[in-house]
Amino acid sequence: MKRPTIHDVAAAAGVSRGTVSRLLNGDRYVSTAARVAIERAIAETGYVVNRNARSLVTQRTGSVVMVLSEPQEHLFEDPNYSTTMRVAIRMLAERDVSLVLMMAGDDGDRERVIRYVRGGHADGVVLLSTHAGDRMADVLVELGVPAVAVGAVVGRERQIPYAAADDREGARQMTRYLVEQGRRRIATITGPMDTPGGIQRLEGFTDVLGRKASKKLITHGDWTRLSGESGMARLLQDVPDIDAVFVASDLMAAGALSTLRMAGRRVPEDVAVGGFDDSSVAVSTHPELTTIRQPLARVAEAAVRLLLAQIDGERPESPVILPTTLVIREST
Amino acid sequence: MKRPTIHDVAAAAGVSRGTVSRLLNGDRYVSTAARVAIERAIAETGYVVNRNARSLVTQRTGSVVMVLSEPQEHLFEDPNYSTTMRVAIRMLAERDVSLVLMMAGDDGDRERVIRYVRGGHADGVVLLSTHAGDRMADVLVELGVPAVAVGAVVGRERQIPYAAADDREGARQMTRYLVEQGRRRIATITGPMDTPGGIQRLEGFTDVLGRKASKKLITHGDWTRLSGESGMARLLQDVPDIDAVFVASDLMAAGALSTLRMAGRRVPEDVAVGGFDDSSVAVSTHPELTTIRQPLARVAEAAVRLLLAQIDGERPESPVILPTTLVIREST
Repeated sequence: MKRPTIHDVAAAAGVSRGTVSRLLNGDRYVSTAARVAIERAIAETGYVVNRNARSLVTQRTGSVVMVLSEPQEHLFEDPNYSTTMRVAIRMLAERDVSLVLMMAGDDGDRERVIRYVRGGHADGVVLLSTHAGDRMADVLVELGVPAVAVGAVVGRERQIPYAAADDREGARQMTRYLVEQGRRRIATITGPMDTPGGIQRLEGFTDVLGRKASKKLITHGDWTRLSGESGMARLLQDVPDIDAVFVASDLMAAGALSTLRMAGRRVPEDVAVGGFDDSSVAVSTHPELTTIRQPLARVAEAAVRLLLAQIDGERPESPVILPTTLVIREST
Repeated sequence: MKRPTIHDVAAAAGVSRGTVSRLLNGDRYVSTAARVAIERAIAETGYVVNRNARSLVTQRTGSVVMVLSEPQEHLFEDPNYSTTMRVAIRMLAERDVSLVLMMAGDDGDRERVIRYVRGGHADGVVLLSTHAGDRMADVLVELGVPAVAVGAVVGRERQIPYAAADDREGARQMTRYLVEQGRRRIATITGPMDTPGGIQRLEGFTDVLGRKASKKLITHGDWTRLSGESGMARLLQDVPDIDAVFVASDLMAAGALSTLRMAGRRVPEDVAVGGFDDSSVAVSTHPELTTIRQPLARVAEAAVRLLLAQIDGERPESPVILPTTLVIREST
């Protein structure tokens, strides 16, 4: 039999999950009627109150766990994580809270993260690059542990507060700019299609190009440099007359530049390349990347604020969406 | 009044700290006489048994904390950390133990790490780049928490088991090689002089050069690329006829190469440059670096084994010192 969850308790009590969660967290502002109904529902369903949820008000651990849902190599390859981590460490330190980092690159890792959080070792969770359908997100919602995502967890936008850049509008800015530059065969290398950056940057691309965004002009990467290289190779094969490519991250764009160089295509003369992020990668490539600046530090700040508000027992306004900027350099 | 420590208990009981620690950790192989003496000493001194130490045998957290005693930027700048972390995650995963990473770049961070470990959130601690005199090391010894260092904690070599490369012999290999190449004015940029890599790589250098290793041929860095740049600038000013430099890390050597290029010195024609690590940095510089290969993955493996043995209640043989290799590339 399936273990009863907080959802079952809420359903049996005829109240919202949030009300159950608030009661379990020691919130006094739950009506007596609701309290009685919930206590009865807990008895009926056999729900086992999680030690973590109950200990939140009485005992804080003084630490927050940041979970990176990617193989560990990505942490070191992608400078975005460094920025996010630096901001989080600084903001949490102001409250004397420490940040611990965990990797959740495979199912075993994810189970260990879940066990860690269930074990009551963290006051809250910051999710980075969590993909749609991740069991971790389900468990966090079930436990009612304060959690926030940097970039939405697709399918969990309502349950897990998040801060993000305006991915869709950013992609529109870049695509419009490439069109205005007179480019005619514009392709894209997207991120993974179970992440908001993957989905929304493609949406922005097709918003602008409409029917011109044919299937063969769209190929998918996984945020790594290598996937930018192979994505670009596929595009050159499928669309030999390509004259521009919007790559959904700077790191993948750096990979695309390598492939173009090897193929003897000049950038920007033959093919214009636009990235996304404006990370340190964008100024370390030759030529330097035209890209979309994500206000990463501000996104991270907003995410940490969303988390701290929850830890303080508040329900913050989510999402926080911050605007992007087109940064023109040498690759277009 | 100072809070009594495990040392005070050991002194009052007339036994070693290790015996006290073993008793607190539930080890049955403590003689009855020692047990009685320790229990009396605990009562007399008013020592408060740490929750963490007592819970070790009864309740494991299933996680180990890796503590990096450097500003967070170093984590992302220095590829050595990536290797160490990857190895540790893989080995711990085999035992279904997760790795959590914490930064201890300043005193506030260090206090939070101490509180985290005291709070019983980790079964063991892996120390990276811990400097001499670090309070964290003192506290770990006092708590009797399983701990291991990647590279010795200077001054705590006997209390905290460690695995390391043979830094001194590695530095000798490089210095001998530079001498054999006919270099006459050989300088060095060291690591910080409160780390074993800083101290021992300088010792290896002076072992070979003897009285020739005059003071102005020695300058100190802090492992960062920037400190390699500024160290090289100082050497060029103090020793204009310099014809070789042994730099105690590849990342600092990359910085030194930048300075030499800016100063118009050819490498290796005018100045030979030798690094230390054989990290990914060594093959990303122009020219590629001649360096000393540290068996980093094997050092990390050995360190994790030392830690797991302690968690299992064993007292492992420490230190584990692994041999280095000279790797000749283009910079000499």
